[in-house]
Amino acid sequence: MTRSISILGATGSVGASTLDLIRRNRDQWRVVALTANSSAGELGELAREFDAEIAVVGDEGCLGDLRDAVGNHCEAAGGRQALCEAAARPADITVAAIVGCAGLGPVMAAIERGGTVALANKEALVSAGEVMTDAVAKHGATLLPVDSEHNAIFQCLAGNRIEDVAKITLTASGGPFREWSQAQLDAATPAQAVKHPNWDMGAKISVDSATMMNKGLEFIEAHHLFPVGLDRLGIVVHPQSVIHSMVEYRDGSTLAQLGPSDMRVPIASCLAYPQRMDTPMPPLDLADIGQLTFFAPDEELFPATRVAREAVQAGGAAPAVLNAANEVAVAAFLAGKLAFTRIAVVVEQTLAQCTPPAPSSLDDVLAVDAEARSCAERMLETA
Amino acid sequence: MTRSISILGATGSVGASTLDLIRRNRDQWRVVALTANSSAGELGELAREFDAEIAVVGDEGCLGDLRDAVGNHCEAAGGRQALCEAAARPADITVAAIVGCAGLGPVMAAIERGGTVALANKEALVSAGEVMTDAVAKHGATLLPVDSEHNAIFQCLAGNRIEDVAKITLTASGGPFREWSQAQLDAATPAQAVKHPNWDMGAKISVDSATMMNKGLEFIEAHHLFPVGLDRLGIVVHPQSVIHSMVEYRDGSTLAQLGPSDMRVPIASCLAYPQRMDTPMPPLDLADIGQLTFFAPDEELFPATRVAREAVQAGGAAPAVLNAANEVAVAAFLAGKLAFTRIAVVVEQTLAQCTPPAPSSLDDVLAVDAEARSCAERMLETA
Repeated sequence: MTRSISILGATGSVGASTLDLIRRNRDQWRVVALTANSSAGELGELAREFDAEIAVVGDEGCLGDLRDAVGNHCEAAGGRQALCEAAARPADITVAAIVGCAGLGPVMAAIERGGTVALANKEALVSAGEVMTDAVAKHGATLLPVDSEHNAIFQCLAGNRIEDVAKITLTASGGPFREWSQAQLDAATPAQAVKHPNWDMGAKISVDSATMMNKGLEFIEAHHLFPVGLDRLGIVVHPQSVIHSMVEYRDGSTLAQLGPSDMRVPIASCLAYPQRMDTPMPPLDLADIGQLTFFAPDEELFPATRVAREAVQAGGAAPAVLNAANEVAVAAFLAGKLAFTRIAVVVEQTLAQCTPPAPSSLDDVLAVDAEARSCAERMLETA
Repeated sequence: MTRSISILGATGSVGASTLDLIRRNRDQWRVVALTANSSAGELGELAREFDAEIAVVGDEGCLGDLRDAVGNHCEAAGGRQALCEAAARPADITVAAIVGCAGLGPVMAAIERGGTVALANKEALVSAGEVMTDAVAKHGATLLPVDSEHNAIFQCLAGNRIEDVAKITLTASGGPFREWSQAQLDAATPAQAVKHPNWDMGAKISVDSATMMNKGLEFIEAHHLFPVGLDRLGIVVHPQSVIHSMVEYRDGSTLAQLGPSDMRVPIASCLAYPQRMDTPMPPLDLADIGQLTFFAPDEELFPATRVAREAVQAGGAAPAVLNAANEVAVAAFLAGKLAFTRIAVVVEQTLAQCTPPAPSSLDDVLAVDAEARSCAERMLETA
């Protein structure tokens, strides 16, 4: 049986992992839309290889290059609106892998179509929160989490009722600075921060991993995906990243999902859901791994998870403000304009200064995002 | 909603754990039958406390004591046949917790009634094998595994298809002698062998844990409960016994069940299946536990898992012979008549000498069991 798929953010790392799986099972998939921000040449090549119906670049200025790349093999389009229109085309599954708030519009378009959305864009859910979960409920859409932690939780909930959950625990690698002192953290450079011990990821998410803000955003994401209450959500540091997350039930049973640090595993679990598909992973060999270790998070040295938890406790616009401020602060850090340990400070200051009302629509969310970015930029000037 | 339950082996450790859970949710359960082998006084007390319909002792000589203990509070009966008749009484769930081959008849009686059987008696399934699984299929019975490892696997399979399983891995504590040398093992005493590091169990199963035959029997049990093929069943030594077992899927995801070493957890999972019920367990705190370690089994020092694997590969009567010979050899060891490291030797010799045809009925299984016991006794004389 052939299934149809659209990939929003086809040239990023989740997009590449998804396409690798499709390539291995080429006859089982029909590709509808592939999108990218500005990598027109690469997108065009992928669209031709996978015989896509349409290729879309978010940056309209790259449309000419995209047209050149696809020739008359498929439709080509450009711009924000075109992304949303592509996301709204019928497909059995839409992989939403556009990084940051830029992915929000296309994700909502796929949700409003009532489709199955494999969500890799955590920022979209963090910022939109109930706006997105309400839309999912209203349009009968299905959200499948791609993030390895949330995918793990989703798998650990199979065959169980959410009301029987006693606790959900996200595992955190602790990032590359897990054993660093305050003084070392103060002097951490972008080059050091983007070297993640277990995962090969983009620069922004690698910095988020180093600050633990990634885990903070995942905490908020988990809150929306698995509504068990904030007091039933926890974090444990697990440097080997073999256990991707856990669900404890009221009877004392804990289910955990383990696997390699390869995004093809959670992506495959979404693509084949509720069944399974082959991936080219070596078998898990715990005797070879030898040991798994666990630590309580240190929120003195890594305050980001505390800041994120407080933001989601505050609710309303706070998570969107947190996410926007973090994107601004991380960009400033990567540009060499902000010390590593000031990232969380800028985020916390922005949360204190920028308190718009709770968003109730996608436009509201985008307005909060813009307002928080401006506010964070002002914080940077005094940071 | 009240549910009805029978407990075969009510005075043993699984029986006590089951009754502890019933006691905590007294108004939700109606107790049909409680049985014991010879602990008539204790059984009588339990029958009165739980307002059982009938109490049965397997040893007919204890029936007088049982009658004295229950008075006219409930029916009392004694003998093998009475055990089977009690097991055949209608109940929503039957907990089969009689140790050893003695439990086979009553378990089969509960299965032939087409009921739901929470199976804690691994020897019954090991010996009867296809005779039992065929009866389960024929009578539409449901087997829920109580053994912590098999219960873990059962939980990890929820919401998934058995054909998507790449590998099932049983965890083994490694027992109290995990780090002992060959010379130390040769001199191991019964008192040393019954001290299990993680579980509080009976003497026979503690010795099985020390020889690793317990894991060998569980390997055979897993083969019957989860028919994925012997090449997809493995064992890993995990001294902390926090992970109770694992299922790896074809996409590279491994699901594991973790929990305290308390039989009330897997029992509760059976009693409430497919939902969950409360147990008085402290939450899992991996940061407090700190580390989980894993080792490949050492089948030179602990050959029992190899012997068991070869027995189930041989099929037919071999697993029943293995189980009977092991019971005889362990009893001899506990009586001070056999060296610890000769247990597996006696089992292997018995398997070589005693090769009856494959059993096709309960009577056949019992005949194989008797024949293997005689053969093992002869082996003891020359051991």
